Amino acid sequence: MIETIEGGSITSIAGFQASGVACGLKGDNALDLALVHSTAPCHAAAVFTTNRFPAAPVLYDRELVARNPDNLRAVIINSGCANACTGDRGIENTQRSADLVAIALKVPTESVFVMSTGVIGAQLPMTTMQRGISLAARSLSDDGGHAAARAIMTTDTRPKETAIRLKLGGQQVAIAGMAKGAGMIHPRMATMLSVIVTDAAVETGLLEKALREAVAYSFHRITIDGDTSTNDTVLLLANGIAGNARITSDDSEDYRHFAEALTCVCTALAQAIVRDGEGATKFVEIKVRGALSQEQALQAAMSVARSSLVKTALFGEDANWGRVLAAVGYSGVEVDPDRTDLWFGDEQVVENGQPLGANEEKLKQILACVDICITVDLGLGEGEAVVWTSDLSYDYVKINAHYRT
Amino acid sequence: MIETIEGGSITSIAGFQASGVACGLKGDNALDLALVHSTAPCHAAAVFTTNRFPAAPVLYDRELVARNPDNLRAVIINSGCANACTGDRGIENTQRSADLVAIALKVPTESVFVMSTGVIGAQLPMTTMQRGISLAARSLSDDGGHAAARAIMTTDTRPKETAIRLKLGGQQVAIAGMAKGAGMIHPRMATMLSVIVTDAAVETGLLEKALREAVAYSFHRITIDGDTSTNDTVLLLANGIAGNARITSDDSEDYRHFAEALTCVCTALAQAIVRDGEGATKFVEIKVRGALSQEQALQAAMSVARSSLVKTALFGEDANWGRVLAAVGYSGVEVDPDRTDLWFGDEQVVENGQPLGANEEKLKQILACVDICITVDLGLGEGEAVVWTSDLSYDYVKINAHYRT
Repeated sequence: MIETIEGGSITSIAGFQASGVACGLKGDNALDLALVHSTAPCHAAAVFTTNRFPAAPVLYDRELVARNPDNLRAVIINSGCANACTGDRGIENTQRSADLVAIALKVPTESVFVMSTGVIGAQLPMTTMQRGISLAARSLSDDGGHAAARAIMTTDTRPKETAIRLKLGGQQVAIAGMAKGAGMIHPRMATMLSVIVTDAAVETGLLEKALREAVAYSFHRITIDGDTSTNDTVLLLANGIAGNARITSDDSEDYRHFAEALTCVCTALAQAIVRDGEGATKFVEIKVRGALSQEQALQAAMSVARSSLVKTALFGEDANWGRVLAAVGYSGVEVDPDRTDLWFGDEQVVENGQPLGANEEKLKQILACVDICITVDLGLGEGEAVVWTSDLSYDYVKINAHYRT
Repeated sequence: MIETIEGGSITSIAGFQASGVACGLKGDNALDLALVHSTAPCHAAAVFTTNRFPAAPVLYDRELVARNPDNLRAVIINSGCANACTGDRGIENTQRSADLVAIALKVPTESVFVMSTGVIGAQLPMTTMQRGISLAARSLSDDGGHAAARAIMTTDTRPKETAIRLKLGGQQVAIAGMAKGAGMIHPRMATMLSVIVTDAAVETGLLEKALREAVAYSFHRITIDGDTSTNDTVLLLANGIAGNARITSDDSEDYRHFAEALTCVCTALAQAIVRDGEGATKFVEIKVRGALSQEQALQAAMSVARSSLVKTALFGEDANWGRVLAAVGYSGVEVDPDRTDLWFGDEQVVENGQPLGANEEKLKQILACVDICITVDLGLGEGEAVVWTSDLSYDYVKINAHYRT
């Protein structure tokens, strides 16, 4: 039984404090620096971008988590500057950010995780960061989760947060997460920034296993613009305060429950990212079934989800199903046109590769909704996958034509 | 010595007649049916889409060219309807179009090549086609090339034609081509519709070899929106009328000259497609050098060329170079951030992975031009590749949001 914590945030979880402050990185007095602090040491697992130009904090954190996965205490996250493609100075600035947090919170530097998001190629202004970190540390509170979720936003129009409760071996535990991201979303190993915290007691190796699986079915199943970020990071922190019997085997019922709940949290955050996609007016679920394998189903679904032509047609509320088939057709998966079926919502438009002359009035109604489901049945096997995407609108172009200026 | 034929078209080539007529497929009295006729039988080579939902004419022509490559006499091309995803009836309609042309021109049905472009999923209106083919046959003329090039346009804003002369063994021969395409452009084996004709005498096998090579360096090097069409076809017809010594070996100087000239023609047409890309305001050359191999250079260049974020930034004339590096970083090729250099035009912005703090005023001038060149040097090897793309503008979204309506 997984239960939602209404209005919950990462500070709904026992032992976690947070803050979100405006320190001047973004101007306009917007919140731009988030700090998360755990009163108890955390076990940690993280998944990072596969982009070959990883940002300085990604390089720093990768090494940190490998070296010190069992004693994390804080996460500092700035928006307004991605600290990516910033060379040696970028790494030095990440290190210095961790040092400043360590001093302010009186914790070891090796217990501080650093994340950045914003413009690529600009250096982090360290005088501003220093002032900001000091302010963020003073502002930590037991209900600072919402402010933290706002402080990590860039082109996001709203914060993305979720919190749930479940029982593990009779003991109540909770998991909560926040995420940011609206553009440069096409995660191939992880996605934009997300911090997930839990009070459950789980062995580090199993935390990582559960996180990898959850990410595979959530953040890895969304695309907004086909661009994989330099900064993608999902961090999971578990402080064990709940007092459940520590999960030590992936064969246990507790592990399965925990992993399932974690997937719920990741899926909710991933879908929230798509709903807030840059310029998005639609939330589109692409379902492919009948593929030769799950991998092929995923590949075909992602090809449709990424197609600029499918996405502009959805923005125009035009049931241009030929573009959906074209995108399946160039996805590289096994296809037999004579066995392919296609639906918009519950209106079938293609059967065994032949157009059905569907009801255009009905299609118009289906496409006028914000939530649209497109289903393709390849009729070849048992492979199934679901992915989520947004449409491509004038506002996507507007937002990205002048992002730096 | 390759010489341009100013104002040339496919009917600049000896023995080729053409026409372009309005038969009502598109409405608005727009030209929508093109016919090409050769007074002498042609050797033919063709390259087709790899999309797994090939259009009916692609299925038809593939078989035709395999069976009868040495006796082609005519090409009928309609716009306004792609005849793709149209099931059995689509194939029947293609066959019937060939029959109608054969009757009108008194040539064998097996000598007629059929191409279609336009909306996917609609059936070809055969009464209209019948009337149109009759009109097109009556309208054939020795200067009908320009009308034919106009009749194959869909969202294209201008026709794409090129014609050149060269000498093979002292004998003058000529090659000319026309192409259409502005959206659904991301050729992976071939691209949108193109017909290239020559009066040179070349063996069929060598025609095909030369065409494959030419296409690899031209149509395969462009992308507008990352979508590979269901109808992509490039057809090369050679009627041998020029009287040059027939080319029979790919080891001959004549073959090399012919292949080089053919690549010129294909490159000119491919670049014309990008310049007329849907909503395009920029023509962008992406050069990658210093890659481990030519394939890796091409993969990295195509990744940049396809990035929605790079393309929107170019539309906004914003030198957001971080997005270029990000796209190289997720392209899957070998990269060492510390050895990567990047230029916009001749202004270097990154050296050995470190931002140079480039002259923003100079960058603004470079990006204000229609023609923009972006160069990435990976500093790892000798692999080089050049590809061409357009920017992503409001008008791309506008054109594609309501294409069917």
